[in-house]
Amino acid sequence: MEATSPNYTVADYLLDRLAGLGVDRIFGVPGDFTLGLLDHVENHPVIRWCGTANELGAGYAADGYARVRGLGVVCTTFGVGELSAINAIAGAYAEHVPVLQLVGSPTTATQAAARPTHHSLGDGDFGHTLRMTAEVTVAQAMLGAADACSEIDRVLVAMLRANQPGYLSLPADIAELATEPPTSDLGDTTPVSDPRALQDFRDAAAEFLAVRLSANGARPVVLADIFVNRVHAEPALHSFLASAGLRFGSLLWGRRVIDESDPHFIGTYIGAASDPAVRDEFESAEVLITAGVYFTDLISGFFSERLDDSRRIDLLPHSAVVAGRTFAGVELIDTLAELEALLPDPGHPTPVAGAAWGAVEVTPTDEPLTQRDLWRIVAAALRPGDTVLADQGTSFYGIGPHRLPHDCVFVGQPLWASIGYTLPALLGAGLAAPLRRPVLLIGDGAAQLTIAELGTLIAEQVPAVVVIVNNAGYTVERAIHGPTSPYNDIAPWDWTAFLPAMGGTDATTQAFRATTGAEVAAAFASAENRPDVLTLIEVVTGPLDVPPLLVAVAQAAAAANAPHV
Amino acid sequence: MEATSPNYTVADYLLDRLAGLGVDRIFGVPGDFTLGLLDHVENHPVIRWCGTANELGAGYAADGYARVRGLGVVCTTFGVGELSAINAIAGAYAEHVPVLQLVGSPTTATQAAARPTHHSLGDGDFGHTLRMTAEVTVAQAMLGAADACSEIDRVLVAMLRANQPGYLSLPADIAELATEPPTSDLGDTTPVSDPRALQDFRDAAAEFLAVRLSANGARPVVLADIFVNRVHAEPALHSFLASAGLRFGSLLWGRRVIDESDPHFIGTYIGAASDPAVRDEFESAEVLITAGVYFTDLISGFFSERLDDSRRIDLLPHSAVVAGRTFAGVELIDTLAELEALLPDPGHPTPVAGAAWGAVEVTPTDEPLTQRDLWRIVAAALRPGDTVLADQGTSFYGIGPHRLPHDCVFVGQPLWASIGYTLPALLGAGLAAPLRRPVLLIGDGAAQLTIAELGTLIAEQVPAVVVIVNNAGYTVERAIHGPTSPYNDIAPWDWTAFLPAMGGTDATTQAFRATTGAEVAAAFASAENRPDVLTLIEVVTGPLDVPPLLVAVAQAAAAANAPHV
Repeated sequence: MEATSPNYTVADYLLDRLAGLGVDRIFGVPGDFTLGLLDHVENHPVIRWCGTANELGAGYAADGYARVRGLGVVCTTFGVGELSAINAIAGAYAEHVPVLQLVGSPTTATQAAARPTHHSLGDGDFGHTLRMTAEVTVAQAMLGAADACSEIDRVLVAMLRANQPGYLSLPADIAELATEPPTSDLGDTTPVSDPRALQDFRDAAAEFLAVRLSANGARPVVLADIFVNRVHAEPALHSFLASAGLRFGSLLWGRRVIDESDPHFIGTYIGAASDPAVRDEFESAEVLITAGVYFTDLISGFFSERLDDSRRIDLLPHSAVVAGRTFAGVELIDTLAELEALLPDPGHPTPVAGAAWGAVEVTPTDEPLTQRDLWRIVAAALRPGDTVLADQGTSFYGIGPHRLPHDCVFVGQPLWASIGYTLPALLGAGLAAPLRRPVLLIGDGAAQLTIAELGTLIAEQVPAVVVIVNNAGYTVERAIHGPTSPYNDIAPWDWTAFLPAMGGTDATTQAFRATTGAEVAAAFASAENRPDVLTLIEVVTGPLDVPPLLVAVAQAAAAANAPHV
Repeated sequence: MEATSPNYTVADYLLDRLAGLGVDRIFGVPGDFTLGLLDHVENHPVIRWCGTANELGAGYAADGYARVRGLGVVCTTFGVGELSAINAIAGAYAEHVPVLQLVGSPTTATQAAARPTHHSLGDGDFGHTLRMTAEVTVAQAMLGAADACSEIDRVLVAMLRANQPGYLSLPADIAELATEPPTSDLGDTTPVSDPRALQDFRDAAAEFLAVRLSANGARPVVLADIFVNRVHAEPALHSFLASAGLRFGSLLWGRRVIDESDPHFIGTYIGAASDPAVRDEFESAEVLITAGVYFTDLISGFFSERLDDSRRIDLLPHSAVVAGRTFAGVELIDTLAELEALLPDPGHPTPVAGAAWGAVEVTPTDEPLTQRDLWRIVAAALRPGDTVLADQGTSFYGIGPHRLPHDCVFVGQPLWASIGYTLPALLGAGLAAPLRRPVLLIGDGAAQLTIAELGTLIAEQVPAVVVIVNNAGYTVERAIHGPTSPYNDIAPWDWTAFLPAMGGTDATTQAFRATTGAEVAAAFASAENRPDVLTLIEVVTGPLDVPPLLVAVAQAAAAANAPHV
């Protein structure tokens, strides 16, 4: 934190708090109510400004950053800017990502005067947007002179405890109020288990495991998912899995929490849409331990999961369930540790029959590309440590069945499912983890929604690999309804031409258009040869060509939307 | 309206209602909850679908369409889609434009099941977005089986009465419910004056005019603005002005309601930022009649208007004020007619000293462009009947002092002031009035926010003239604060390269990059020679070059944002 200065203000306090929580970038678009605040950003020793093309892009970027760093910040102007970004805030709320919506608002004098001010509704009420945002944030404040710093702390603590977004509206004059730097850190925002409940859980789990496992010497199977990440329990999970030597898998949402290159990896569970052998192992396990699992329609084959309560231990973020009996107030980190103690390594677990990443030989051909081949080739071209973002369409389901290399950070958004999200999120994730290669898998329909931030990726020199699947429209929608309807078509764009249009040069970017598997593989090889540049790969597939996994999911979606369910 | 069909559904009813109100286009992005509805759009005899690149673009396009046609519709999917468009709805609410936010939502069965469904927050509550939108719409409904059609009517009537947005969420199953076509029209949605109040107004106005005008034989001066348009009183205003032969002007917001090429046009009133002679005529008038005027900060030089209450008659949308005495329940159309009856044509009014559009000789040179010269050249290149949209930055203030040709439809957004608005709004306005030439004036910073819809303009073959002022960033912000701060810079784009990238060909588009006045004039001449193609003119000016009018407004904005006002 900065030394006390006679000019130290509320804006500095807020920035120091954010820097103390690991934030080194703020994403946004300036507006006249934020310009003073941005002077403080510009003068801050740690935090840098990342100006994006538009506010929704900034919000998605902050979300992508938060999914890697643990906290993200989008800064916009009052009214117009914040509402353009609010879809990103709602997505972060739904998917439990702590993103701070920081709004520069009119001065307290302007608000008190209640006159028709630009960026307001003209009715003298400056509270509309705070109330709107309250539906999708865990804490909110319009900062005032009396308690600006304590309100900043309150909102940040609430965000970190819930792993959800918060909202701070900072009037231009309050930003400049003199104050003192923080004198202590925010305190531990991690919830703590109730010792009694944890003891009860341990006893129940021990008895349950003893009874079920002694019957036939079986070992538990583990199904982990995204909430392991959200409550920062990945180290506890990995320790548990390694110590107990258990076979495991995840859902499509939480691929990042387990290692798909591990020989104990069973596969991805998607309910009825799972690979049959994978489905059978999870559904018929003598004991299934779920960790951080939350079934939503798009990752469960529309709630087709069939997991017997009586054979299950569910470790939830702040509670656990043992064969139907709930234990409230126990934290996932602690329940994992308890199970680790209960299940020592038995020696040599059965390796998985399925092939790990890299074990499948992929031979790209010069035949016209199909979705089936495309994703095998893409998966083979991924590298350990990559950050991989897949948009919620053919890309998410296309890469779904293919194992990822070791240490990949996989990001999707299957609950909120806002198409176009991943392109700006790649910007945030790439800047948050500069030592990882950012790889984007996105369809053309989705990319049209947020294409403007390709320019920001170029300007920020993020050396990403951007794969755009050009199938002339919303193929994920075509698979659900209206396969040849014009409303599922999009304006035809020449994707590789966007790099020079958006400031890319041959020294900083390269583009490929691939219509065969061999061309896709060659483009990825070129990307590896030039790791410092942004590589855009336009991949051409047929408008009605759908990844196999998406066929099943789309049929379930169509049934759910039918008039008579 | 369609003949009754055994397959006639709620979706058809809604579309027939919209068509009956003059809607022939719906703007939006498809989603799986809207696909069934879009089948009905596709089969409708009148209404056509316009798929945009993203939902904010669709919302702005619907707003631009509504400002020309009187009603616009944006159709998106639940959650993600509607929230991406909500800034556009808020803008329409602030600026009194009736835009219907039509949302395709999950079936009633899915909502009742309250399970974690995609595009929801995962908490089983499907009401979040309706509550959010209620802050920025005049009426809302989640349609159900019991009263879908009457709820549709209720929301549409409320919108048309208030000239503000409404919200209809249409579950996928409700869209398919069988129903009957409308048997009568929606009824007259125009509010009616209270006869007694109107009589009182007439008497007061007659006495006031008799007393004030008899003193020195002066004639009233009229200041009209945007709410004349919003309550459809333009014919009444024009009749009044022509009959009474009065000198008149407008504010920057409502330029479209008067004819700046008329010899009675005084000029535009901007409070202290007005041309001194114009200011003096309005502020010292013996009697000033305002019609549909609502002073907001950006059109009043931050509330610097100085108009004496005791010499004024204010005709408001639904009330009037005579020398400080208010008459509630009188409609603007009626009060204009009353004044017309009270003020017969005196014969020959004094012509205005200032030069009308076309009277100023503009001689473009080969010198580097300045903002001062640019807008003179642009104004001279406009043509009678053009639809002109100016984004709320240098463009709005740049074209501000320059008179427009006869019958121009001028659109700005100075209250909500969401930069980037005008590019998609041009799409809507262009499709709403295909016989007018659409002309867009926008800065590069603003254009980056919504550039994706340039592709939709190309795909829809809108023969617009798009002027993009390339000054490497947010010059309107630079004028307020941080003139050389990096946060006011943007990613450098090659604007003319976007046409081929977005599907434009030499047969359908042309692009020019102009660095001198002569080049700007030549580009406009080329646009006139090829009226069927889209013409993009990139105009290069200096980062710190600000139109003269904006200097004054920006200084006032900086003062308003200062810590101690």
